[in-house]
Amino acid sequence: MGRRVSDFRQSVPQLGGESVLVNGAVFKTVSETVRAGSGRFDSYTPPPGTTSRSNSSLQGIPHMIRDWVELNMTPGIGPRAAAKILERFGSAEALYKATRAELEQLRLPPEAVDTIIARELLPRAEAEITTVKKLCGEILLLDDGVYPSSLREIYDPPIVLYVKGAWKDCLDRPCIGVVGSRRCSTYGQNSAIMLARDLAQRGVTVISGFARGIDAAAHRGALDGGGRTVAVLGTGIDEVYPRDHKKLAAEILDRGGALVSQFPLGTPPVSENFPYRNRIISGLSLGVVVVEAAENSGSLITARLAMEQNREVFAVPGNITSRNSFGTNYLIKGAGAKLVQQWQDIAAELPPQIAATLLPPPFSDKGNERSLPEKLSLLPGGLSGNETSILKLLASDSPAHIDVLVDQSRLPIPDVTAALLGLEMRELIRALPGKCFVRKM
Amino acid sequence: MGRRVSDFRQSVPQLGGESVLVNGAVFKTVSETVRAGSGRFDSYTPPPGTTSRSNSSLQGIPHMIRDWVELNMTPGIGPRAAAKILERFGSAEALYKATRAELEQLRLPPEAVDTIIARELLPRAEAEITTVKKLCGEILLLDDGVYPSSLREIYDPPIVLYVKGAWKDCLDRPCIGVVGSRRCSTYGQNSAIMLARDLAQRGVTVISGFARGIDAAAHRGALDGGGRTVAVLGTGIDEVYPRDHKKLAAEILDRGGALVSQFPLGTPPVSENFPYRNRIISGLSLGVVVVEAAENSGSLITARLAMEQNREVFAVPGNITSRNSFGTNYLIKGAGAKLVQQWQDIAAELPPQIAATLLPPPFSDKGNERSLPEKLSLLPGGLSGNETSILKLLASDSPAHIDVLVDQSRLPIPDVTAALLGLEMRELIRALPGKCFVRKM
Repeated sequence: MGRRVSDFRQSVPQLGGESVLVNGAVFKTVSETVRAGSGRFDSYTPPPGTTSRSNSSLQGIPHMIRDWVELNMTPGIGPRAAAKILERFGSAEALYKATRAELEQLRLPPEAVDTIIARELLPRAEAEITTVKKLCGEILLLDDGVYPSSLREIYDPPIVLYVKGAWKDCLDRPCIGVVGSRRCSTYGQNSAIMLARDLAQRGVTVISGFARGIDAAAHRGALDGGGRTVAVLGTGIDEVYPRDHKKLAAEILDRGGALVSQFPLGTPPVSENFPYRNRIISGLSLGVVVVEAAENSGSLITARLAMEQNREVFAVPGNITSRNSFGTNYLIKGAGAKLVQQWQDIAAELPPQIAATLLPPPFSDKGNERSLPEKLSLLPGGLSGNETSILKLLASDSPAHIDVLVDQSRLPIPDVTAALLGLEMRELIRALPGKCFVRKM
Repeated sequence: MGRRVSDFRQSVPQLGGESVLVNGAVFKTVSETVRAGSGRFDSYTPPPGTTSRSNSSLQGIPHMIRDWVELNMTPGIGPRAAAKILERFGSAEALYKATRAELEQLRLPPEAVDTIIARELLPRAEAEITTVKKLCGEILLLDDGVYPSSLREIYDPPIVLYVKGAWKDCLDRPCIGVVGSRRCSTYGQNSAIMLARDLAQRGVTVISGFARGIDAAAHRGALDGGGRTVAVLGTGIDEVYPRDHKKLAAEILDRGGALVSQFPLGTPPVSENFPYRNRIISGLSLGVVVVEAAENSGSLITARLAMEQNREVFAVPGNITSRNSFGTNYLIKGAGAKLVQQWQDIAAELPPQIAATLLPPPFSDKGNERSLPEKLSLLPGGLSGNETSILKLLASDSPAHIDVLVDQSRLPIPDVTAALLGLEMRELIRALPGKCFVRKM
């Protein structure tokens, strides 16, 4: 489809300017607000002269973080409205000093205006910060200097992020989202486990949405591979949903993983929140793999959002007669998603400097590292006679034309073509334009 | 991969010249030879003064066709060697007047030279022509004016083609090859039947290789759809292989289909011949659909040859855990094959004037013509509320930007994105660059 962030930038002149980022204006105002400190409440010292309309009884909680948390939990204020507010007022603090008339100019929902003016949620925000601390969680703010940089780049990053566990270690590694339908087939589950395990074994952090089905399989696969995984929740980080995933949540945290959510504590699982969760999954990731998705699956929206975020989108193909694969096949056919047969197909699309850190050193574990066709027992082990003949004729430094190969091998054209195809599939040679071939290094 | 016939043309300067066709030199000399008549033996009048080294006792068989049939049945003379011969001697007739020294200069296999000099196969060629007539078959020559033009365009067309049945009616329609592994899964078989049936119902001739598995399913599907199908054999047209396909062969002929082979009568099924058959399948077709293919499947070679012949290549995806789909998934991932979920995906890639003849008129059979997701019972029938809202905001003549849609619909971005995706998948709208959308006509 090719609609990327770059297109998107051109199309939001209202946020305008020469800013590097999509919502540069927002970032600028937020930066001005929070430049005095890191913004994380456990390390924050309030700048001198900070004032607030309310008379908070809590000591040690910076007003700024409290105001953001309060804004974030206000019903009717999503990331887009929050961006509007910050563009207009420059900070959450300034917002809470604004008059009703000023707020009404922004066309916010009337209930939201009432809530903000009355500072109804202030006590809850203060309590929230204490509770998060008790839960051993943290609250990140959009421009606090530790907020995940890849997520900051997206069009509408959450202004507040609740995190728990070793989130920083996880997100410092290459991250790949692995998502799919809640109702999935055994095939989909196995594929998710296989890919997540193979990626996690190579140091990739597997990001998923903690839902039943493919998401759970992805987290499980990463744990099976001895790797790290981050669960992005559509609920508060204190809510485990579905309930029977309690053990999975505990295991993710125990094994160096993390939980992440933009939603206040106690937020129940409501379906309207899941698309917001999905854009965090892709926002945190270099690319997103959709393993199974029916026609109306939320995973397709994740894929679309990921493309808009300029992330690589991968999809696992499946039988055209399976409704669970309709969406993934569609993504490959019509939306430019890369087809994935094995983890290498994902690695191949990552930036080279990142891919290089993933790939196991050549010949290091030749015994275990078998290609997919080998795993599927399709390969007789070695090369055919014709393949050997053709490979011998090829050099890695100068391309040979197919006619030369036909003449030199004295084989019929179809045999030479077949041998070249076999060698290509084993990734031993590379085809160049004009029917020329070289050996790979 | 992008290596097309156009590349190939540049790479065969030895056949050179400014000719439009790859093997222009061959065509030129053949044309000179056969310009006197159509070349088909049942309507051929020998040009005056035709002579031959042999003393044929048969009357009514033109020497030219006999010489070509004889050349075609000479062991060691494939299409490439035949092209060399014709380039050097200008005609099969002249070849048979050549000296041993002249033949040896061509570096033909010594046995072939012996056979040609001794005219060993002349009696068999004469008998062959009579037998083909008795079998109600025909023999086509490369430049007889009725030889299938799409096949003539390929790099190494067979110099002689044995045909049986309504080959002309079949090949005058749009032709699509549907091929795949002999050892296939039930999924592959069903997919082949479905696609072949759907194509045949719309007037497409389904071409396949008469093998067990996917090929047989493709022929069967076309017959089920009440359409026409052409079996390209790797044996002589008098040999039915596999034996248990006798009924299938009879049905293909009864129902207006045809059998085609480049091999002399009595040629047994030997695996070396199958690649030559495969290139006829793709040569006769606008495009080739690979339904299932394991890693070393001949169908992958067919796909490669089809690409070299500048034909569209399609592949049906399948589960990554199925060895039968390894090859088709690979073709999509690495070789530029178009993913096929349904017959429309094939039609969409054909030249518009041909596709227009295939597509049923819009709304004509709305009741039966259900989309794949509808067939898979994924659709609730109509559009969701959000989809309806967004569709109402879109016009078919002027693109709307997503921001405008968000503002006008008052829906959150993820909901708008989801609705747009749903509408795109139903092919009701089209996405344009820069996150703009229009309604389809």
